[in-house]
Amino acid sequence: MSIEPTTSEALIKQSLERFLLVLTVSLSVATLPQIFSWVRQIPYTLLLVIVGLGLAFVDVRLVNLSPALILSIFLPPLLFEAAWNLQWKDLKRDLVPVSLYAILGVLISVLGIAIALNQFAAIPVATALLIGASLSATDPISVIALFRELGVEKRLSTLMEGESLFNDGVAVVAFSLLVGLALGTSQFEVRGTIAQFGAFVGIGVGIGSLIGFGISYLTQRFDLPLVEQSLTLVSAYGTYLIVEELGGSGVIGVVTVGLVLGNFGSRIGMNPRTRLIVTEFWEFLSFFVNSIVFLLIGDQIQFASLARNLDTIAITLLAMLFTRAIAIYALGALSNVLVKSDINLRQQTVLWWGGLRGSVSIALALSVPIILEAREEIIATVFGVVLFTLLVQGLTTKPLLKVLNLLGDQTVRQNYLEAIARRAALQRVLNHLKEGQDGPDIDWEFYRYQTALVEGQIKDIQNNINQMRSKEPELQDFAREQFKEELLAIEADTYAEFVRSGRLNRDLAPFLQDVLTGGD
Amino acid sequence: MSIEPTTSEALIKQSLERFLLVLTVSLSVATLPQIFSWVRQIPYTLLLVIVGLGLAFVDVRLVNLSPALILSIFLPPLLFEAAWNLQWKDLKRDLVPVSLYAILGVLISVLGIAIALNQFAAIPVATALLIGASLSATDPISVIALFRELGVEKRLSTLMEGESLFNDGVAVVAFSLLVGLALGTSQFEVRGTIAQFGAFVGIGVGIGSLIGFGISYLTQRFDLPLVEQSLTLVSAYGTYLIVEELGGSGVIGVVTVGLVLGNFGSRIGMNPRTRLIVTEFWEFLSFFVNSIVFLLIGDQIQFASLARNLDTIAITLLAMLFTRAIAIYALGALSNVLVKSDINLRQQTVLWWGGLRGSVSIALALSVPIILEAREEIIATVFGVVLFTLLVQGLTTKPLLKVLNLLGDQTVRQNYLEAIARRAALQRVLNHLKEGQDGPDIDWEFYRYQTALVEGQIKDIQNNINQMRSKEPELQDFAREQFKEELLAIEADTYAEFVRSGRLNRDLAPFLQDVLTGGD
Repeated sequence: MSIEPTTSEALIKQSLERFLLVLTVSLSVATLPQIFSWVRQIPYTLLLVIVGLGLAFVDVRLVNLSPALILSIFLPPLLFEAAWNLQWKDLKRDLVPVSLYAILGVLISVLGIAIALNQFAAIPVATALLIGASLSATDPISVIALFRELGVEKRLSTLMEGESLFNDGVAVVAFSLLVGLALGTSQFEVRGTIAQFGAFVGIGVGIGSLIGFGISYLTQRFDLPLVEQSLTLVSAYGTYLIVEELGGSGVIGVVTVGLVLGNFGSRIGMNPRTRLIVTEFWEFLSFFVNSIVFLLIGDQIQFASLARNLDTIAITLLAMLFTRAIAIYALGALSNVLVKSDINLRQQTVLWWGGLRGSVSIALALSVPIILEAREEIIATVFGVVLFTLLVQGLTTKPLLKVLNLLGDQTVRQNYLEAIARRAALQRVLNHLKEGQDGPDIDWEFYRYQTALVEGQIKDIQNNINQMRSKEPELQDFAREQFKEELLAIEADTYAEFVRSGRLNRDLAPFLQDVLTGGD
Repeated sequence: MSIEPTTSEALIKQSLERFLLVLTVSLSVATLPQIFSWVRQIPYTLLLVIVGLGLAFVDVRLVNLSPALILSIFLPPLLFEAAWNLQWKDLKRDLVPVSLYAILGVLISVLGIAIALNQFAAIPVATALLIGASLSATDPISVIALFRELGVEKRLSTLMEGESLFNDGVAVVAFSLLVGLALGTSQFEVRGTIAQFGAFVGIGVGIGSLIGFGISYLTQRFDLPLVEQSLTLVSAYGTYLIVEELGGSGVIGVVTVGLVLGNFGSRIGMNPRTRLIVTEFWEFLSFFVNSIVFLLIGDQIQFASLARNLDTIAITLLAMLFTRAIAIYALGALSNVLVKSDINLRQQTVLWWGGLRGSVSIALALSVPIILEAREEIIATVFGVVLFTLLVQGLTTKPLLKVLNLLGDQTVRQNYLEAIARRAALQRVLNHLKEGQDGPDIDWEFYRYQTALVEGQIKDIQNNINQMRSKEPELQDFAREQFKEELLAIEADTYAEFVRSGRLNRDLAPFLQDVLTGGD
């Protein structure tokens, strides 16, 4: 279209083009495991980091990551989705250990890293503290992406996700206080700092709850699926911005609103079908944003700068691992004593090694004011450490879980599901064979042979299934769940077919509502 | 968070805040019909325009609409969604009248409006032609939004949507040619103009098909729902940008890719569940974008400027309505003679009065170069006419449909179809339950309970269907039609399955012909 663009219009177009390019690369990466089977061992998000690194290595820079992009655009939907899916009753049970890790754990880490850097790398205290603060919060995005792909037991992932969702608040307060110290604009004072922290978290929780419960009661008054879906999106971004505007922790605000809407609002205000659609929508959005974020993290790496700061990176890394070990094992023991939380050593080991750092650390490092001399050093160190945690720790967490026998009953269930699928597939083959019985196009003997073969296989699989069930009694519950889902899927498929072929209008929502709830 | 923003970061945050504000207003508007029942008569999109006008009246300006925002951000998803849901076999049947309206109809309108403005308002030819070109294409967004809410018969909405989706190509070519004339940078030449138009449309259709079929075959090779969902989004925006970059019609490109993916790609490449999720996702996205667009259209109005140009607006409006009457009735008659398309006078009357102008006209007017003196006059006139079509024509189309008896028995048929779909879905569930009878993986009681539940539901629905049939005898005919479509759908799905599993060669053209046109 021969319409001359003005500057702002050229900017809109350019950003759009850039993001489409990033997405195209990411989606290509997502199909890699379909082509090369060995790639299947690597989680999608880490694969993206690796491909991003490759692009950075040949100096192809896709988009410049800025703190605002990470914090205002990418973080809110990811946090909201995580909180939406977090079960309050699980989190509540582990509130004490999660709080200990999220508050004291961060403080131990900031101090530990700073002392090590100051002692062994002769880095000034102010800079050392800033590096420590940037790296002391585990990253909700990376941790959740990893743990979901690994399929660990629920308890462990609740602990890990809970800590990651809440520890940013502490890290950010520490960081902004320390920036003030480094710039000489503020002074350290214990009582003031605690008050500041209280206000920071309090505003987040307060505004988040207000918006969350407000929307919950509002949506109870009407049944407009599209409006309710939009409201979840508005609440995620809106809460973040409002809380930040008021000087609170946007991260904690979003997590709160997500928890409230996911555990309360979606139950009282949404019909089950809307809840399902909204959950699927957020699953898509988080896949979408993750696809962008992790590719860009890899793509931001400046290899020369990393090489110049290799010593600092190594020292920081060791200090970080060491202080996290202290924090996790000591606070875990404390929690076990205090509330009998019963977190065993194997679980603690995973919490220690699985505590990845990621986008939040990068956003904090990038937001160090340009007037601070040590800015480049801080950024390089943080990127180096983040890269190590993502690639080395990220890729070895699964083997660690295997060694510690913490992968949960995922594999049993997986095997069970595979057996069920195989039986269904072979049953269909058998039906097909029997259908053609009265007039097969092939010779009778071959046909008989094939039938016998399939029947034999089905029998074997059935034995296998029976065995699994008698060995793992909880598969009974699982089977029921599966069965119900199967019935729902058949129903949904039928509707989809009707809609596709034009026999049914698209507006299914109100009508499906009673269908999908009617069965239970 | 006390991180100082740089300029670009402040910009990101500000844009985000603005759009959240717009959305919050729009969502509040969406809940109005729940509170005031008289509001229910007004379609959501028109309600948004009215509220936007109210805000403009008290001089609250939310976001400045720019052509780039309309064309690059809002238009692609709305066009894609419309095309994704448009049935190719319906469109094909009416290809001749749709083409006549979309090509000749636009030309008649441009000339008619220009002559009237020049004769009766003494407006220079160049300016008059620009106003004519801006206002000669019916707006896909407004028209589709309105016709969907009204629930007219299928034939009429296919004609209306088809025309609106394709006539922008002609209008935009005419407009950019005329801008060149007005600026004195180009000259009019018939052969060159036709070649330009051919290239403009050809590039759109070509690139759109290439991307559409490319993605269709690609997604056939894997089953990754989230990736496939993302690909539809990437293809909508990507096609628009690429086609525009190559000098083609982005609008036609997006419509083509949407048609291909909706009618072909989603059948051969997606499993039914993915198809359903993707359709729901686009429904949401289009609701979301519509919520923004229509509020902003109302909010852009400059009342003083409108008042200054009231004469011009009135003359343009009359000319527009008059030339559209000529175009619709004459071309309708022509089409009825040429291909026996059998579009009756009542339908033509709705096509005439329902041809709303909207966002595309506004985008074109806003893109008039600032150096042209008449820019303000053009913008004011276009906004004035758009407002009239949206509010007056938009609000009176439903009464018109009622008077002409064209609202169809939509609700009866819809209920009937829903009942049929439910019965089919539950019947399949029942079959599935009975298949597993000889060796269910779940306990007997649970199984019996589920079976009884489903059987009871089927019985209720069957009673309901019987009742409807005896009350509305014409459902008998309708049912026969449906039955034929059902058989065609089974055929088409079987082909699609064969193609998907690789048992059928992907000989595109003849195969597509068969599947997509069915037996007629």
